[in-house]
Amino acid sequence: MSFDLALIRAAHQRIRPFIKRTPVLTSEALDELWGTRLFFKCENLQAAGAFKSRGACNAVFSLTDAEAANGVVTHSSGNHAAALARAAQLRGITAHIVMPANAPQSKIQNVGHYGGWITFCEANLAARETACARVAAQTGATIVHPFDDLRVAAGQGTATIEFLEDEPALDFILCPVGGGGLLCGTAVVAKARRPGIKVIGVEPALADDVAQSLRAGKRISIPTPATIADGLRTNCTGEKNFPIIQQYVDEVVTVSEEGIVAAMRELWEKLRIVIEPSAAVAYAAIREGKVNVAGRRTGIILTGGNVDLTTLPWMNP
Amino acid sequence: MSFDLALIRAAHQRIRPFIKRTPVLTSEALDELWGTRLFFKCENLQAAGAFKSRGACNAVFSLTDAEAANGVVTHSSGNHAAALARAAQLRGITAHIVMPANAPQSKIQNVGHYGGWITFCEANLAARETACARVAAQTGATIVHPFDDLRVAAGQGTATIEFLEDEPALDFILCPVGGGGLLCGTAVVAKARRPGIKVIGVEPALADDVAQSLRAGKRISIPTPATIADGLRTNCTGEKNFPIIQQYVDEVVTVSEEGIVAAMRELWEKLRIVIEPSAAVAYAAIREGKVNVAGRRTGIILTGGNVDLTTLPWMNP
Repeated sequence: MSFDLALIRAAHQRIRPFIKRTPVLTSEALDELWGTRLFFKCENLQAAGAFKSRGACNAVFSLTDAEAANGVVTHSSGNHAAALARAAQLRGITAHIVMPANAPQSKIQNVGHYGGWITFCEANLAARETACARVAAQTGATIVHPFDDLRVAAGQGTATIEFLEDEPALDFILCPVGGGGLLCGTAVVAKARRPGIKVIGVEPALADDVAQSLRAGKRISIPTPATIADGLRTNCTGEKNFPIIQQYVDEVVTVSEEGIVAAMRELWEKLRIVIEPSAAVAYAAIREGKVNVAGRRTGIILTGGNVDLTTLPWMNP
Repeated sequence: MSFDLALIRAAHQRIRPFIKRTPVLTSEALDELWGTRLFFKCENLQAAGAFKSRGACNAVFSLTDAEAANGVVTHSSGNHAAALARAAQLRGITAHIVMPANAPQSKIQNVGHYGGWITFCEANLAARETACARVAAQTGATIVHPFDDLRVAAGQGTATIEFLEDEPALDFILCPVGGGGLLCGTAVVAKARRPGIKVIGVEPALADDVAQSLRAGKRISIPTPATIADGLRTNCTGEKNFPIIQQYVDEVVTVSEEGIVAAMRELWEKLRIVIEPSAAVAYAAIREGKVNVAGRRTGIILTGGNVDLTTLPWMNP
């Protein structure tokens, strides 16, 4: 399978009935502040509150009926888990979700809401992978990895097809990087549609495995990062994703934890939308001067909006 | 001037370059909860964060050049003040804003951001009206009342032109009621475009002057209400608005303070957007069973998104 625009277009056709076409928002106040036009693709307003619905739907609806009959399985405690449960429910099949026993109640409820079957395991990557493989062996379910799966990455890339339809003349496109599925899909679409565009990935400095990997020329694994951006706490970018990132991404920059919180609050105030910390990293890169956007029409992918509203990070003492 | 669809269409043409076409959002979770389809017209995502930009732009861009040269004046400490200052800035004229000396710093900054000239006065309606009349007399500025002005009400109605273009088959349309400008414009557009639609206004029970007025058959004035919905703290609906409300609005219902806070939080969580308390009253009416929407395609106008993010109402002890 060649990971190209045609593949991602086909994914878009496949998932269109099951996802939202999310709006692109702008802010006069932010444009004035940065001396340019900023365009925000609001995947926090996507079904289940994150772009993950795109990749999950593409994976689930790519299965043959025979494969689908055995269901799907993944290990995730975050937005991919809920998105996969939702996609499976839409196809009428079973989603097995392996989660650490200490996962937050809200994440467990999200998966339960979509009828996912939860298998609890110990809270480390080895235990999660073992449990996932065991469920797959026992049930015949297809493993749908959160990012190291080209059907998933192709689904994530569909956001950028819509983005460039709505705003064709972008100079830059910025997106958060966790495992790299979104970044791959974004970069391949952006470069195919608009070769002069600059594609920039943004990581928390505490979770800079992709920046390290690009410098080293090979995938570097890091201990589980303690960043507030819980969607970006990956140890290592995907084996399938990394060569695509090397080929198509212009740059990966990093941002501080304080910068993430400040960016999150500023976007809540100025765009009047709810985004999670992971979604704020791209704008944090602008605020911290890691990317100079003055005079460049800049697209930013806001990835998710699932937060606990009981307390907010800028309220912590 | 006849207050009809043609007038509001003309307003839409006039203001289109200066406002945003706001998105209509939906939520699978809310639709499931209420057994119907709910459509939210997101005027919290409007320029300056509220539908008030529509009415203010229509008033300002309706002035002759001779009138405009003397500027505009209003008394308001809320979204209308910022919206009028913004509209005046766009036309390159002066906006005088009369505000109580105890207005929150954030509201003062909002007006200052758009270059409005602030005149402080005592914190009561008589002092505000006197100061406003004095500024008008001294400067020749045109008074733009926050709601009792048909140019303003016509501007507010333009949101419903867009809403029914995007979602033509609505059975109900719900909107918050303060002074009644938005409700007038909404009702006239909705009934002209779709005669069978039911138009429902929603007030905080603490600020039920319009519900009282409809029962009495005449405008009733109440003491300044202490509702958390600060945009709806009006004493009395507009003289020009009331007969239009009597003619076109099917019903006005009221909601509790607790209901407003709960509705606000639920919409932040499920729609993943920031709305202010005033914007939550229409959905609160559904939650409190004041309107039975089961099986009825229901449009809800979310009016504004200007809140202080330092604390949130559901966090108060």
